[in-house]
Amino acid sequence: MTDLTIQLTNERNKCLYLQIYEYIRDEIRSGKLLTGEKLPSTRSLAEYLQVARSTVDFAYGQLVAEGYLEAKPHKGYFVSSVEELLDISSLTENTVDKSFPDERCEENISTFLENSKEQKPIYDFSPHAISLKDFPFATWKKITRNILVDANSEMFARGDAQGDLSLRETIARYLHSSRGVNCRPDQIVVGAGTDYLFMLLEKILGRHIPIAMEEPTYERAYRIFQSFAYEITAIPVDGSGMNVEKLRKSGARLAYVMPSHQYPTGIVMPIGRRMELLRWAMEEPDRYLIEDDYDSEFRYRGKPIPSLQASDSVGKVIYMGTFSKSIAPAIRVGYMVLPDRLLVSYRNNCGCYASTVSRIDQRILDEFIRDGYFERYLNKMRKIYKEKHDYLLTLLHPFEKSFRISGENAGLHLLLASKKNVTEEELLLAAEKEGIRIYGMSQACMEGQEIEKSFRNTVLLGYGALEETELKAGIELLKKAWSAYL
Amino acid sequence: MTDLTIQLTNERNKCLYLQIYEYIRDEIRSGKLLTGEKLPSTRSLAEYLQVARSTVDFAYGQLVAEGYLEAKPHKGYFVSSVEELLDISSLTENTVDKSFPDERCEENISTFLENSKEQKPIYDFSPHAISLKDFPFATWKKITRNILVDANSEMFARGDAQGDLSLRETIARYLHSSRGVNCRPDQIVVGAGTDYLFMLLEKILGRHIPIAMEEPTYERAYRIFQSFAYEITAIPVDGSGMNVEKLRKSGARLAYVMPSHQYPTGIVMPIGRRMELLRWAMEEPDRYLIEDDYDSEFRYRGKPIPSLQASDSVGKVIYMGTFSKSIAPAIRVGYMVLPDRLLVSYRNNCGCYASTVSRIDQRILDEFIRDGYFERYLNKMRKIYKEKHDYLLTLLHPFEKSFRISGENAGLHLLLASKKNVTEEELLLAAEKEGIRIYGMSQACMEGQEIEKSFRNTVLLGYGALEETELKAGIELLKKAWSAYL
Repeated sequence: MTDLTIQLTNERNKCLYLQIYEYIRDEIRSGKLLTGEKLPSTRSLAEYLQVARSTVDFAYGQLVAEGYLEAKPHKGYFVSSVEELLDISSLTENTVDKSFPDERCEENISTFLENSKEQKPIYDFSPHAISLKDFPFATWKKITRNILVDANSEMFARGDAQGDLSLRETIARYLHSSRGVNCRPDQIVVGAGTDYLFMLLEKILGRHIPIAMEEPTYERAYRIFQSFAYEITAIPVDGSGMNVEKLRKSGARLAYVMPSHQYPTGIVMPIGRRMELLRWAMEEPDRYLIEDDYDSEFRYRGKPIPSLQASDSVGKVIYMGTFSKSIAPAIRVGYMVLPDRLLVSYRNNCGCYASTVSRIDQRILDEFIRDGYFERYLNKMRKIYKEKHDYLLTLLHPFEKSFRISGENAGLHLLLASKKNVTEEELLLAAEKEGIRIYGMSQACMEGQEIEKSFRNTVLLGYGALEETELKAGIELLKKAWSAYL
Repeated sequence: MTDLTIQLTNERNKCLYLQIYEYIRDEIRSGKLLTGEKLPSTRSLAEYLQVARSTVDFAYGQLVAEGYLEAKPHKGYFVSSVEELLDISSLTENTVDKSFPDERCEENISTFLENSKEQKPIYDFSPHAISLKDFPFATWKKITRNILVDANSEMFARGDAQGDLSLRETIARYLHSSRGVNCRPDQIVVGAGTDYLFMLLEKILGRHIPIAMEEPTYERAYRIFQSFAYEITAIPVDGSGMNVEKLRKSGARLAYVMPSHQYPTGIVMPIGRRMELLRWAMEEPDRYLIEDDYDSEFRYRGKPIPSLQASDSVGKVIYMGTFSKSIAPAIRVGYMVLPDRLLVSYRNNCGCYASTVSRIDQRILDEFIRDGYFERYLNKMRKIYKEKHDYLLTLLHPFEKSFRISGENAGLHLLLASKKNVTEEELLLAAEKEGIRIYGMSQACMEGQEIEKSFRNTVLLGYGALEETELKAGIELLKKAWSAYL
């Protein structure tokens, strides 16, 4: 599925749905959107563009009416086949445009016209953005230079499929000291990002496996398991995380969990629930827990919480982590720790796959960690993020009457739930009008699921990438935008 | 499946099979080989270690008898379960060793004893090894340094899932000028090595697909398709490559071919056969040809042969290549060119996978190609490899009476087929005794296939990684080793 990066402007006072319509039409005409290609759902495109869902509905409806798109029930919208498009392409640009007089547009979605006259979002409170401003570029460059000076042809040769031993030793030590993970270096598989490691995991675990995911959950992981055609069951989280009774009833063999801080709720799974999960896994030999500990490094409240893997003495936890979040997104290095029983399957089924990370990159990372730079960087970022978090909390004081504010363990975002039952859509739309991009809880909910009532009025405010001055200005604007809801 | 890197020595005059037995036993005892793990087949281990198959048979047999291994009919040898091993582990080292007095060893495989007194191979004629001696490390380092000087936080952010546009433009231009490939940059997917791209391809094409491969073929690709549980049919090559009649009868939907120089035979597929293949693909909408063009850069005889993709006007060829061979194995960058129809499926099914190559690495490679260094390096290596090839041919003059020598288009190796019907095993074994490691054709043949008669007496001599002095000394030793067969 393609992301449509439509730049909404107030060009020629064109209304929003017309801009969406024209953008998609032109993409299809120019062959950038291809026959049979699936479009984003109206909900997700509306969220992505921060417009009302009805706006996208209207644009898609017009494209269907004109034969550019085909709507398949329960499947979504797809680009129509080329033959059908040939007739349309022969129409001149003007002919098509004439069917969209701006008057009609204004009649139909006049309420959104106002919107289109505003600017693009100025402050993006993405929960996934991180700050790279404080990344020790100089150190990274220095290490790289030094490694290149020493680099011999050995470094340019093919390395170990699981990753070079030295890096795996370093990761094992780091995981043990910082996350309580118990593992030997030979249990670690290094790969170019978590997505790739998930692909390996599919080869290790097998196909068409019933998997349980927390609802709401991390949307990228959800999309990846969907691409595996895994049978996904959404298990609602309660105050302690994944509900184990519902997990047991689901018939799942795998459970994907984030015990240290659940995304997006920020729930920290207490030890009792962890034990329940482990017991569930022990009931059948082929049950496993996938622990995604992907940005546990940035916890800065209270005592560090050990990983679930640390409590696992029976080899039921597959532990996953990445440096893409804790160092930089372009560092395409993630790792997974396999229980012994799965190591056999890894070697039998994945032994033929060469490592996806160059030895030079492995070596740079290895030195960055071994020489203590990583720890120093993490400490620095923890401090910076904590300051941002605390500052944002202060800025949000005026919202406390009307919003439940939570998520101090959630990572790099806070959750705001309207006590007055203002909907997510209303909150996003009002914010967007003032140039504030915030994110809805529904984005983290699985398709076809009824969104839990308490989540319908909840939005996410990420602060990782924003400076304090930006936070201040952004929240000022948000106060203005939400004046009716405060 | 694990590679067993057993170092065979003449330590304590221990015979070969005893060394193999002890090595595997110790790996199991120490937990490095895990319960349920599959061992290499006796054939492949024998080939890998360059010992007679009966030697490995004997070692495995003993391990089975003692309960370390379990033999499953038609499946192979597996490490026994832990419970069974506990009893064995309680035995002392001596107890077990006593069952292997050196006398018995000598009785049983006395013919190989001589072998074990010799040194390890001195000259390795691997067909897959390449020379890194002439790699322009200084240039690579300089580009890296310059990029790091300019590198801003943008370079450390997440890039395009298909690879950065600039690199894809560069690859498109390069492929067009050097290989006649016709493609737009948006058809290119850059990934961390061919293995990873094959995994993406499985997601694009679907599962359990019947695929035809040339017999013999590139063994890594064969292992990867096996790991996909693809239904593989071996189609024997004739003088023009894959036999299309047999392909048609096979019911395959995919055909994996190497038209520019088939590995390992070196066959160049003539245009007529290429057209036949394309016609086969056109007969059904879901048939595709996978063209693996993995080291076509190193052709140095005659006119450059365009890719099969260059003749494909209907979008039936998936073109694959890698810089791991043409630049260096540690450069984990490969690419595939998708026909438009598969682009849709890529975007729908693989849009969620983040790029596996860091933006910095992409940028280094991009500049290395754009600034002309790649072309200069290729020209230099072509000249070097051509000189080695010609020199090796001269050195092999004394073998011409007794061997058919072929493979001038085969890449970085030559093929020697005994006219006196000396078997591959005999040839390898005799060479090994003199410290010469050469490779058998059977390695490139698929499991469960009858090895074609003409291949049973064929061995491969790779010369990519050997210097002229090494080639000379190695062939001198080979002459001595094969004196009985000349």
